[in-house]
Amino acid sequence: MQVSKAVLAHDIGDLFRPRSIAIVGVPRGFKAGKVFLLGLLDQGFGGPLYAIHPDASEVDGIKAYRSLDAVPGEVDMVIVLVPRGAVAPVMEQCVRKKVKLVVLYTSGYREAGDGEGAEEEGRLCEYARRGGFRILGPNCMGIYCPEAGLAFFPGMPKRSGHAAVLSQSGSLSSLLTNPCVRRGVFFSKVVSYGNGADLDLPELLEYFYKDPSTTLVCAYCEGVRDGRALVRVLREGAGSKPLIFWKVGTTREGRQAAASHTGSLCGSALLWEAAFRQYGVCAVGDIEECIDRIVAFSYLDRSGESRLGRVAVISGPGGPAVSAADAAGRCGLALAELTESTRTTLKKILPRFGTSVRNPIDVGLAASFSLGHYLDTLEAVAQDPTVDVILMLGSGASEEMNREYIDGMIRVRSTYGTPLIAIAYPGFLEDESLLQRLWDASIPVYPTPERALSSYAAVVRYRRLWSARPGSVADERR
Amino acid sequence: MQVSKAVLAHDIGDLFRPRSIAIVGVPRGFKAGKVFLLGLLDQGFGGPLYAIHPDASEVDGIKAYRSLDAVPGEVDMVIVLVPRGAVAPVMEQCVRKKVKLVVLYTSGYREAGDGEGAEEEGRLCEYARRGGFRILGPNCMGIYCPEAGLAFFPGMPKRSGHAAVLSQSGSLSSLLTNPCVRRGVFFSKVVSYGNGADLDLPELLEYFYKDPSTTLVCAYCEGVRDGRALVRVLREGAGSKPLIFWKVGTTREGRQAAASHTGSLCGSALLWEAAFRQYGVCAVGDIEECIDRIVAFSYLDRSGESRLGRVAVISGPGGPAVSAADAAGRCGLALAELTESTRTTLKKILPRFGTSVRNPIDVGLAASFSLGHYLDTLEAVAQDPTVDVILMLGSGASEEMNREYIDGMIRVRSTYGTPLIAIAYPGFLEDESLLQRLWDASIPVYPTPERALSSYAAVVRYRRLWSARPGSVADERR
Repeated sequence: MQVSKAVLAHDIGDLFRPRSIAIVGVPRGFKAGKVFLLGLLDQGFGGPLYAIHPDASEVDGIKAYRSLDAVPGEVDMVIVLVPRGAVAPVMEQCVRKKVKLVVLYTSGYREAGDGEGAEEEGRLCEYARRGGFRILGPNCMGIYCPEAGLAFFPGMPKRSGHAAVLSQSGSLSSLLTNPCVRRGVFFSKVVSYGNGADLDLPELLEYFYKDPSTTLVCAYCEGVRDGRALVRVLREGAGSKPLIFWKVGTTREGRQAAASHTGSLCGSALLWEAAFRQYGVCAVGDIEECIDRIVAFSYLDRSGESRLGRVAVISGPGGPAVSAADAAGRCGLALAELTESTRTTLKKILPRFGTSVRNPIDVGLAASFSLGHYLDTLEAVAQDPTVDVILMLGSGASEEMNREYIDGMIRVRSTYGTPLIAIAYPGFLEDESLLQRLWDASIPVYPTPERALSSYAAVVRYRRLWSARPGSVADERR
Repeated sequence: MQVSKAVLAHDIGDLFRPRSIAIVGVPRGFKAGKVFLLGLLDQGFGGPLYAIHPDASEVDGIKAYRSLDAVPGEVDMVIVLVPRGAVAPVMEQCVRKKVKLVVLYTSGYREAGDGEGAEEEGRLCEYARRGGFRILGPNCMGIYCPEAGLAFFPGMPKRSGHAAVLSQSGSLSSLLTNPCVRRGVFFSKVVSYGNGADLDLPELLEYFYKDPSTTLVCAYCEGVRDGRALVRVLREGAGSKPLIFWKVGTTREGRQAAASHTGSLCGSALLWEAAFRQYGVCAVGDIEECIDRIVAFSYLDRSGESRLGRVAVISGPGGPAVSAADAAGRCGLALAELTESTRTTLKKILPRFGTSVRNPIDVGLAASFSLGHYLDTLEAVAQDPTVDVILMLGSGASEEMNREYIDGMIRVRSTYGTPLIAIAYPGFLEDESLLQRLWDASIPVYPTPERALSSYAAVVRYRRLWSARPGSVADERR
C-alpha cells in the first residue's frame, strides 16, 4: 500500500513549507481539535489559513468555508479532524483541490484492530496516488516547524534550532520537546506521523539525514512497514548526523499496546538492536534517556575531538565521586590521567586530608565553605591537555555561595572552552534561575553523574565510530 | 583489627541514644565542622552539650571546655573534629572519661593510602578496646536520629519515620534523605560510618534488621572488611525487612576511587551480586534508583498482596502508554487482564476511536479536555479485582483542569484503597503544590512510567520471594 515515489510530485522539504493551510472539521468550543488552529495562530503562520466547517461562517476570527471546494485560493496543506466516517468526501475534495499534503489527525484506522480500519487505511493511499499528494498519519499531530510557522499545539517556541524529532506518538513529540527547550535545545522540525500509512519513518528519516537545518535526529518508533527501506536509509545516513532512537514494542506487552496505538507491527527486538549497532544508532529506552542524549549531543559533541572521552571528576561529596568513577568505568569512558603539573598544582590548592588529587578529584567537604578549593581546582583541570570533559559535583554552603560557585564555572567554561557538566542534586543546587544561567553558558546540568556520563558516552561512541574513518561525513564537517 | 564483641559493654541501640554529647575541635567561624554543632542545636538535642576548644570559653552560646577531662558530667558520645595528628590525646581522654561512642569525623586514615594512615586507623581500635567504647568512622558524619535529637547537618527534619540509611558516604546520606523527605518519607536513623574501622556494615545492618522503629533499610557501601559476617547478617535478616543496596566500586575506576575515599576494598562485583540475589536484596545503581525504590517500598508495598503485581495503565497520551506496557514487560510485571464488566463499563465511558479499553487503557488525547474520560475510567479500574496497582499518565488541558484531575485521583485513592501512581511529565503536570497534594494522599509521583514500574517491580519481587513462604517474618507481620 506504499505510494511509489515515481508518482510523487513534491519534495518532502516542500511539504514542510506550505503556503496555505485549511483545517477541516475545526471545532468551535474548547475541544481537543482546537489545538491545531491555536497552534498555527500562536506560531503566526504567514499564509492564508482557512477553516472548513459545515455551518460556521468564522471560527476564532478565521473565515470559515463549507468545504475545501469553496475555498477561493490554492491550498497546500490540509489538516483533517473529522471522524473516520466523514474522511472519504474530504479526501475527494483534496484530490480535486490539488493539495500537496494531508495531515490526518483522525483515528480509528489500522490501530482499531477491526479489519475495517486497516482497509480504510489502505484506501487513503489510493486518494493520495490519484491526487498526487502525500499523507501524514492517520492518527497523528502533524508538523511543528517554526521556520515555516507551523505548530500543532499553542505555546511551542517560535525559535528554530538544530534538532529534529520523528515520532509516531503526537504526545511524545511534545513531551520530548518541552524539556529540551528549557535546556536551550531548539528544533528545526518535529513530525508526528502516527500510523505512517503513507509517509513512514524511512522516507522521513532519509529527508532529515539530508536536511541542512537539522544536525541531530531523534526518533520514537513503534514499528515500520518497510524494514528493508529503513535499513537502507540507516546505512546510507550512518555517520552523517547522530540518530537517537527510542524503539518501543520490544516486549509482548509493548507490542500489543503498539498494535492498539498506531497499528504497528513492532518486529523482532533483536533485529532492531543489530541494526542499531551496525549503523551506530544511539538506542535509548525511555524519555529521560532521549532528553539526556539530545542534551549531550547538543552541548558536549566536539566532533572528532570527542572520541577520546577522558573525563575529569571534581567533587566535594566523596560518595558521588566514587559513583561517578564507577559510571565512567561502566560506560567505557576513561578517567583522565592528569599531568604531573596539574597534580602538583592541586596539591597546593587542596588540604592534605579528606581530599584526593587523583581523578576523581575529591576536593573535600570543606570546599562548600571554601569555594576556592572547587574553583581553583576547576581552573587547573580545565587547562590540562589530558582532559576532554569535566564533571562538577558540588555546591556552596549557602545560596550566595552557590551563586559564586556557578559564576566560577561559567568563567572557566568561557575562558578555557573545555566542556563542563554540572551535577545538580535536589536540595543542594536547584535554584532554577541559577541553573538556567549554566544552560545559557553552554554548561549542561544533569541530576546524577550516572545520567551525565552515560549520555556523554553516547557522544564518545558516536565519534569513535565515525571520526576514525577518513572521508566520513563527520570528518568532512570538522 | 576488629573489636571483639565480647568486650563491648554497650548495645548499639543505646549508642544511638546518648544522654550527653561533647564536640572536640568545634570551630568558631563559618567552617565545615560547624555543621555538627548547628545540627544538634537545630534538632534540639535534649541532654548536656559540651564544646571542647583549646582557648574559647564558649562557642555559639555553648559553654566550652579545654578538654574532655575538664567536662564536669558524664559524656556518652564524643564527636571528634580535630586533625589526625591531634586525635591520639583525645582518644586517651575518651578512655579516661568512659565514653560510649566516638564519632570520628577526622580523615587521613586508611583512605590516605600512605601506610601511616592505615596504621593509625588500626590504633584507633586499641583505644576503643581499652576504653570499652565504640567508634563510628573515621571519615564519617555520624548519626541522624530525630527521636534522640541527633543530626549532623542543620535543617534535617525533626519528624521521625520508618526508613533507615547506612552509608559510608556522609554526603550521600544527606543527598538521599532530602529528596525522600520531600516525598513524605521520614527516617528512624541515618548512619554515616565512613571507613568503618570499628562499627562496620555487618554489625550496623544486624542492628537495623532488628530495630523495631525501622521497617526499611537502604545501604550505600564501597566495601566491607568482614565479608563473611555480612553474608551471615544478610542470610539471617533476609525477608525480615526490605534492604535496598547501592554497592559502588564495581569497576576498576570505582574501586580506585573508593580506596581514596574510605580506604575500602570493594571486592568482586560478581560475589556481591550473587549474595544480593540469594538473599533477596534490592540492588540499585544510582541515587535516583535508591530514592525511587525507597518511595515504592514506602507507598506501594501491601505486604503479601503485592506479590501479584498486576498493573493497570490509564493514559491519555498514546506513546507513553506503549512505553509503560514495555516497561511492565521488561520488569516482569503483568498487565492486569481486567474483568469483562470493567471493559463493558470502559466502552460506555470512552469514545470509540483514538482509545483502547484493553490494558494499557488509552483514554485518548481528548481526555485532557474531558476529564471524565480519565476519572470515570480510573474509578472503574480501581474497583476491578484483577488490578493491584494503577499507573495514571495524564494531565488536564489547563491549570484548573489539572487541579480537578488531581482531586479526582485523591478521591478514588481514598475511596477504594487501590494503590495509585501518578506520572508527572515536565511541562504537563509539574506544579509543586499540586504534586505535594498527591504525596500527602499517599499517591507517589514518578517522572516516567519506566522508573515507576521498575521500582514497583522491586516491591513485587521482594513479596514474591518472601510472602510465598509460610512462617517467614514477612508472613508473620501481615
